[in-house]
Amino acid sequence: MKNGNKNVLTAVTEVEVHFYDVDAVNIVWHGNYVKYLENAREAFGTKFGFEYMEIYRNGYITPIVDLHIRYLNTVALGERLIVEIQYVPSKSAKLTYHYRIWRKTDRLPVAEATTVQLFMSKEGVFETSTPDFFRRWKQQWNQ
Amino acid sequence: MKNGNKNVLTAVTEVEVHFYDVDAVNIVWHGNYVKYLENAREAFGTKFGFEYMEIYRNGYITPIVDLHIRYLNTVALGERLIVEIQYVPSKSAKLTYHYRIWRKTDRLPVAEATTVQLFMSKEGVFETSTPDFFRRWKQQWNQ
Amino acid sequence: MKNGNKNVLTAVTEVEVHFYDVDAVNIVWHGNYVKYLENAREAFGTKFGFEYMEIYRNGYITPIVDLHIRYLNTVALGERLIVEIQYVPSKSAKLTYHYRIWRKTDRLPVAEATTVQLFMSKEGVFETSTPDFFRRWKQQWNQ
Amino acid sequence: MKNGNKNVLTAVTEVEVHFYDVDAVNIVWHGNYVKYLENAREAFGTKFGFEYMEIYRNGYITPIVDLHIRYLNTVALGERLIVEIQYVPSKSAKLTYHYRIWRKTDRLPVAEATTVQLFMSKEGVFETSTPDFFRRWKQQWNQ
Repeated sequence: MKNGNKNVLTAVTEVEVHFYDVDAVNIVWHGNYVKYLENAREAFGTKFGFEYMEIYRNGYITPIVDLHIRYLNTVALGERLIVEIQYVPSKSAKLTYHYRIWRKTDRLPVAEATTVQLFMSKEGVFETSTPDFFRRWKQQWNQ
Repeated sequence: MKNGNKNVLTAVTEVEVHFYDVDAVNIVWHGNYVKYLENAREAFGTKFGFEYMEIYRNGYITPIVDLHIRYLNTVALGERLIVEIQYVPSKSAKLTYHYRIWRKTDRLPVAEATTVQLFMSKEGVFETSTPDFFRRWKQQWNQ
Repeated sequence: MKNGNKNVLTAVTEVEVHFYDVDAVNIVWHGNYVKYLENAREAFGTKFGFEYMEIYRNGYITPIVDLHIRYLNTVALGERLIVEIQYVPSKSAKLTYHYRIWRKTDRLPVAEATTVQLFMSKEGVFETSTPDFFRRWKQQWNQ
Repeated sequence: MKNGNKNVLTAVTEVEVHFYDVDAVNIVWHGNYVKYLENAREAFGTKFGFEYMEIYRNGYITPIVDLHIRYLNTVALGERLIVEIQYVPSKSAKLTYHYRIWRKTDRLPVAEATTVQLFMSKEGVFETSTPDFFRRWKQQWNQ
């Protein structure tokens, strides 16, 4: 897919709702969606050579600085969810992803989310300019 | 405290960071903050007679429909956090809270957050007008 | 498979280790194995018509009364695990399962576990004699 | 307290049951007890100079190799628990703790547990003889 001159990079992962995921009113506890977003980032990293460990080998961690989830429909025990993640291009030294979650059986929308991550050195200092390895990664994928 | 004609309703709770809260780079995993916000809502409920079970007895659950967290500083094992929750008055049938989290020892800001909840009947239907018990609660606390 | 006169009932499920599963020393936090065991019980329930919700419809919940895990090898981020669950026949009104967990790539043993569950009515009373629906289930599967 | 010639080393911590701790039948999910045991080990470490980070500075991590929990009574939302941890002396290079958990209000027994930990170097090798720093710690506390 193209978005202007850029490729649109997306990945998809599937989540199964377990007993330990639901709360006292039998719906998935809202905090668990944060795990589903992380699953999607891992799937994205695997697909596009951008795994957590690859980033770490280049000297960085990428802490989340902004998390925004809009919950559209509740989810019950045993349901299966699809989580789609899309990379949002940016000129600055940050990582932004959009997410859409829907129920697998009928594509009922379940949630939308956005996360923003910054690059931090292992010494705990935020990186304000784009790290070289990230610049190369963006060129490789036309971002 | 007053905010215009309204009282400003706040509560505070304390959180201790345990070994199981930190991730592979020794900082609190960002998803755990969702628990800290829930702790604060529980403290608020206890202080102002607005507990989860009290709401449930009135026929409602209050699912989160919007969660927004801005992470300002990372947190390490063994640190103690203070979580302050403030009720945000609204004319509509929803519950909005703001949160500020800081490190106990030196008041370093750690995160800010907002949650929005709607009222849902036990049959799973969202309530668009203000439930009676919530109207009474708002009057009681001048909200 | 046969075990004396009885069939040996087993099910298998697969687990992927996510970033949020590992601890500060980069191995899966030991408490997360409890989730993997529950995944396996769910797979068993699906395979043999013994799901949590099916038990609940028959009037019972089945709280864990004994959990024993022996950890044999640590597990790292990104590894995939196989969890095998085996039903352990018993004449009394309880559910016992044995579990073996190994690494998918090389079958390295990771853990062994046993859980015991009792039948409790929804009113919170433990059932000392075998519930009818459980007796029928045992006959159906020659247990 | 004395146990033969040895001091009996115990510590106590308090746990509050949050909404996110209970499951679909409104009792604490059994896997969460593993966190309560870790809280107690942390309290023990603080009291007796045996924190996780202190062990780590001496070159070791101490992975759990055996976890055994016996659940005696279910626990509901809002209850407070007391967790008592007792160090079990041993001549070999391992750490064994016993735990008792009870409800704070009426001392109802909730669970008993045992954990066993071994010493592992940061390179991932199990230590079969008692590490020096652990020998000194045992002498200091007459264990």
